[in-house]
Amino acid sequence: MKDFNDLPAHVWPRNAKREEDGVVTIAGVPLPELAEEFDTPLYVFDEDDFRSRCQDMARAFGGPDHVHYASKAFICKKIVNWVNEEGLCLDVASINELKIALAADFPAKRITAHGNNKDADYLTLCVEQGVGHVVLDNENELRQLDEIARAHDAVQPVMIRVKPGVDAHTHEFVATSHEDQKFGISLATGAAFDAAKECLEATGLRLVGLHCHVGSQVFNAEGFKLAAERVLSLYKRIHAELGVALPELDLGGGFGIPYMEYEEALDVDAVARDLLSAVDRTAEELDITPPFVLVEPGRALVAGSAVALYRVGTVKDVETGHNELPIRRYLSVDGGMSDNIRPALYESEYDVRVVSGYTEGKMVDSRIVGFHCESGDILVDERKLPDDIQTGDLVAFAASGGYQYMMSSRYNGAVRPAVVATRVGNTKPMLRRETIEDLLSLEVD
Amino acid sequence: MKDFNDLPAHVWPRNAKREEDGVVTIAGVPLPELAEEFDTPLYVFDEDDFRSRCQDMARAFGGPDHVHYASKAFICKKIVNWVNEEGLCLDVASINELKIALAADFPAKRITAHGNNKDADYLTLCVEQGVGHVVLDNENELRQLDEIARAHDAVQPVMIRVKPGVDAHTHEFVATSHEDQKFGISLATGAAFDAAKECLEATGLRLVGLHCHVGSQVFNAEGFKLAAERVLSLYKRIHAELGVALPELDLGGGFGIPYMEYEEALDVDAVARDLLSAVDRTAEELDITPPFVLVEPGRALVAGSAVALYRVGTVKDVETGHNELPIRRYLSVDGGMSDNIRPALYESEYDVRVVSGYTEGKMVDSRIVGFHCESGDILVDERKLPDDIQTGDLVAFAASGGYQYMMSSRYNGAVRPAVVATRVGNTKPMLRRETIEDLLSLEVD
Repeated sequence: MKDFNDLPAHVWPRNAKREEDGVVTIAGVPLPELAEEFDTPLYVFDEDDFRSRCQDMARAFGGPDHVHYASKAFICKKIVNWVNEEGLCLDVASINELKIALAADFPAKRITAHGNNKDADYLTLCVEQGVGHVVLDNENELRQLDEIARAHDAVQPVMIRVKPGVDAHTHEFVATSHEDQKFGISLATGAAFDAAKECLEATGLRLVGLHCHVGSQVFNAEGFKLAAERVLSLYKRIHAELGVALPELDLGGGFGIPYMEYEEALDVDAVARDLLSAVDRTAEELDITPPFVLVEPGRALVAGSAVALYRVGTVKDVETGHNELPIRRYLSVDGGMSDNIRPALYESEYDVRVVSGYTEGKMVDSRIVGFHCESGDILVDERKLPDDIQTGDLVAFAASGGYQYMMSSRYNGAVRPAVVATRVGNTKPMLRRETIEDLLSLEVD
Repeated sequence: MKDFNDLPAHVWPRNAKREEDGVVTIAGVPLPELAEEFDTPLYVFDEDDFRSRCQDMARAFGGPDHVHYASKAFICKKIVNWVNEEGLCLDVASINELKIALAADFPAKRITAHGNNKDADYLTLCVEQGVGHVVLDNENELRQLDEIARAHDAVQPVMIRVKPGVDAHTHEFVATSHEDQKFGISLATGAAFDAAKECLEATGLRLVGLHCHVGSQVFNAEGFKLAAERVLSLYKRIHAELGVALPELDLGGGFGIPYMEYEEALDVDAVARDLLSAVDRTAEELDITPPFVLVEPGRALVAGSAVALYRVGTVKDVETGHNELPIRRYLSVDGGMSDNIRPALYESEYDVRVVSGYTEGKMVDSRIVGFHCESGDILVDERKLPDDIQTGDLVAFAASGGYQYMMSSRYNGAVRPAVVATRVGNTKPMLRRETIEDLLSLEVD
């Protein structure tokens, strides 16, 4: 066991630091000050961390226009601005994500619109706003979008989401299967070729490439490479039979991040190099022009940039009745499954540290729970934590920038936490904390 | 397989009916009309169903003042009003649930306040408003509340949440264990007796009874009875050693409901009779005055009263690559894990029917998925559904009144659905549908 006061650098925001007095700062701003000013739970983004990850990813893949930030992981106007300023493109997965991006004046041309169940309103907004790419999920959508585009005298650039039959998750991948899912059109059955053909014939659509997605929390290039090979074979066939060289290839997202100290960070450069050279090599073997490669990181850009900050309330030693773990300490915090459903939903783990000062206690079997009226409201199930953590202490969860806030609920009257960003000693609020008035604002009298 | 057009009466709201034209009405109001007026997804409550369940539960347990509606399952001002009008008491699990109840003018005296992590604000509001019961979770809270009450020159009636060591879930129960959880004070270790003693000595508190909770989705009285026996033995000891006869006993909630046709409804009368007679018998054996029994149904009152209504979008036949199930039909709806996280979180199942008209198709292997950008966004994993369900059809999920809406998120820019109530041919909006303006209202410029 390393020192609990350490902040594992590969898991915590790049500008997180434990100062000499034991307090943790993010970009020079002490977390206890932020807790005081904005209340807890609180999500704190390290703005420069996010920007530097954007830059790293852009550099690795050959430029910012190769990288689409998958905004489903975390979207608000400020982060959309950052993405814009860093020159990246933006993915949206619904009409409202698109509306938020447009509200932040993100250029529509650099937006890619996703979704397995796009309705006419969503497709129409894409066409009207001149969204850069619509990723077609299925044949009906293809026809519907073609009709909408023609009605608007527009030609909508599109990609087709194909199922390459590759399932890549966490350090492993499965070369077959993954067909049994809601997204996309099958490569193996020939349906993707037929859709591409239909697309090329549709006067309202301009097919610029194919899109695939191999999984999430992927830590190496193998799955991406196999998917790319399979998809490129369709590029070959489209070129051979339909005479069209598709200029772009979107390999989706899913780049893994470490949540726990024992997990390694993804080597973005190595994966990018591996993947891009595989695309080039395959294109050469197939004798086709190598397409412009796009990737769609969400979590990999944003999750590591933020911490979730809670205040400890009830501290309780529970006699469990189990011999192997006779006493478990329960630490209750002022958030829980309302602001972070991921432990309950995916058994996700987090690196948690006390950030209001040094701890020196003995490490004891502990569990961190939320305030919700549900036994399953557990944020950290099993962990050795110092026994000097007390009511009033602040704890922070690293790698909390992705999905948590987006999936947050008002369960048990929880108000959504505030979200703030720190940068070289300054703090900017991004999203204000909800209030009881917000909770009551939907009531119809 | 029964006719897919049937609505299993024990799962659907009492006033749900498939009319001669095939359309399903709730209390005489056609669901397609509601979809048209309020858009989908939509939650539709059968007001008289809820009221009748309140009445049934009250009758079974000896009067409405024996029954606390656990509002965490679903709270808004209108339902709080209904609970009030039916004469039941109300449970809250957080300061904001308390505030919503007070905003609806629910009498504070008939409110019980729960929580494993109550802070000073919550406890203070309880004292200031004269909340009927505060259920103490732990010794620190006991001392804090005593202090707050004395500072307000008040004497706060309280119960103590004890862990009886009984775990009752879905048709079974475990007589030992269940100690390893965040709620309450252990009976077995003697800590509960010590807390009761301390409580009786605290001048700011008036101990009126003990509280326990044995689980959720419980279908018989066995777990409750054993818990009651164990807790009553502490009543005996408190009477014998401290000279106090505690007047009330709160046995918590957890009464099960059927979600699927093959599940049986709980026989509320039988369970109540069984449970109450066990309490009386045990009290007699222990030679103590039988306490006034309280129960706290949430789901059992509210879940069966509402349906969740979705419109079908993308319909897709997927070649799965599995021999045992070569083709699966995917039906996408316009909601998903944002408005119903329960299938993803608990593998919950629902009775789903087409409500916009009759279906006559062949039953085919189907999956119902949401619109979210996540493969796990599955509402119904495996089900035979008629193959004539088409884009634009309306499907409704029964038993959707509990937890779904409360745990709803804005994932992928989802707006929270509207909630309406129907009663004898009329419709009242309860909660309005969120808008993109609501989503943007937390942005800080």
